Amino acid sequence: MNVYDKAHELATALKNSSEVADITGAMKVVDSDPESKLMLENFRKSQMELQQRMMSGEMPPQEEMEKMEKLFEVLNMNLGIRRLFEAERRLSVVIEDVNKIISESLQHLYGGSIQ
Amino acid sequence: MNVYDKAHELATALKNSSEVADITGAMKVVDSDPESKLMLENFRKSQMELQQRMMSGEMPPQEEMEKMEKLFEVLNMNLGIRRLFEAERRLSVVIEDVNKIISESLQHLYGGSIQ
Repeated sequence: MNVYDKAHELATALKNSSEVADITGAMKVVDSDPESKLMLENFRKSQMELQQRMMSGEMPPQEEMEKMEKLFEVLNMNLGIRRLFEAERRLSVVIEDVNKIISESLQHLYGGSIQ
Repeated sequence: MNVYDKAHELATALKNSSEVADITGAMKVVDSDPESKLMLENFRKSQMELQQRMMSGEMPPQEEMEKMEKLFEVLNMNLGIRRLFEAERRLSVVIEDVNKIISESLQHLYGGSIQ
């Protein structure tokens, strides 16, 4: 049983998962409405900027974090965007699970006398 | 084709891979020699401390990094430990490839108009 074959099979399963289909479907809805599309694009941009700053060790001020949370709530009132966010959250849970399954398969390696 | 089934199949393939068998084999050799075992344990401990400090944003002084590199070279003169390090490096390449294969399968989601 080859690791690479299995990784490609997993990749295909992910690509064909209901979570990915939901994301693609919700994206189509959002894309079809210019206002929703722009709103989402602006949110993604701000979010990415914030994440990059946090990754470089900067802790953004509390009020900025709150502003993003508020913006997130506003976007969630848009049905298409909410559907997209929910589908993305479901996919991220699946990916987290997959990573857990993979790393658990290797845990026994370092559970021995050599930590 | 279920994502979780495929993840478990991949996990089993990893567990049964030649890379993991090499690590287990090399570990047995190292474990059988108390001196090698202690040397490796001390190295792992220092390495983990250093990584934790770096993850918390601290940049350890140059001389400390050099000391770790020297220690790594010394450990590599021990045949069992070298075999272990090489097997670990090979496994880390496989895991990196697996992660790449999985993330590439999802890249198309964000290659569209919404970045």
